[in-house]
Amino acid sequence: MLNQSLEKIVENTPGAAGAILMGFDGIAVMQHIAEGHEDVDIESTAMEFSFRYVELRQAAESLDMGEVTDITIKADNRSVLCRVLSDEYFVAIVLADSSHMGKGRWMLRSTASELQTEL
Amino acid sequence: MLNQSLEKIVENTPGAAGAILMGFDGIAVMQHIAEGHEDVDIESTAMEFSFRYVELRQAAESLDMGEVTDITIKADNRSVLCRVLSDEYFVAIVLADSSHMGKGRWMLRSTASELQTEL
Repeated sequence: MLNQSLEKIVENTPGAAGAILMGFDGIAVMQHIAEGHEDVDIESTAMEFSFRYVELRQAAESLDMGEVTDITIKADNRSVLCRVLSDEYFVAIVLADSSHMGKGRWMLRSTASELQTEL
Repeated sequence: MLNQSLEKIVENTPGAAGAILMGFDGIAVMQHIAEGHEDVDIESTAMEFSFRYVELRQAAESLDMGEVTDITIKADNRSVLCRVLSDEYFVAIVLADSSHMGKGRWMLRSTASELQTEL
C-alpha cells in the first residue's frame, strides 16, 4: 500500500525522478523511482536533507511559526519537495524537471492522509 | 529603489506580512512591513533561517543539484519564501496567510532581476 501511494505520486507528477518515505533520522522506509531515473540517488538526497529538516522545524517552532508542513528546495538541476507526515516521518519527491512543482506539492498533500494511515 | 521593489512584492502578494533583503550572514539590508503586520519580526525570522539556508545550499551543491534558487518553508501559522539573489544575498517574504504562495513566489522571481541590479 505504501508502495502504491509512492508510485501514484511519481506517476502523476511530471518530471518526478522518484519519491521516498523517510524518517527524520535519515532512515528510508520505502521508495519508488521513475523509469529512466535509476541513476538518481533519491535516498542519499533525502538523507542529506533530513537532518537539515529537523533544524528547520526547530527554528520554525522557536519563531512561533507553528508546525512545519512543507519544505521546498528548488535548484538548477533538481528540486526536492518534502511533506511532513508526522513527528517522525516525511515523504519527499525529487524532481528532475521543476516545471510542475505545484502539481508535485498537490500530489504530496492529497496522498499524505493515506500514507499517514499506513505508518 | 530597493525599498520600492520590496514594497511592490508585499503589496502584490495577498497575505504577505512583509519582505526583507538580507545577506546570508544574517545581516538585513532593508525590509518592508505590510500595514497591520508591525508585530511580525521579519528580521529575526529571516536571520534565523539565513544560516540554515547556507547549509541547504551546501548540501544541494554536494548532491550535484546545482545552484539553489528558491527555498520555501510552510508552517501552520506562517510561511517563509526565499529567493536567492546572489552568492551573498537573498530576498524573503513572510506570509501570515499561505493561500497565495504561488503568487508570492512569482513576485519574488519577477522582482529578482531589479533587486540584483540594485545590489
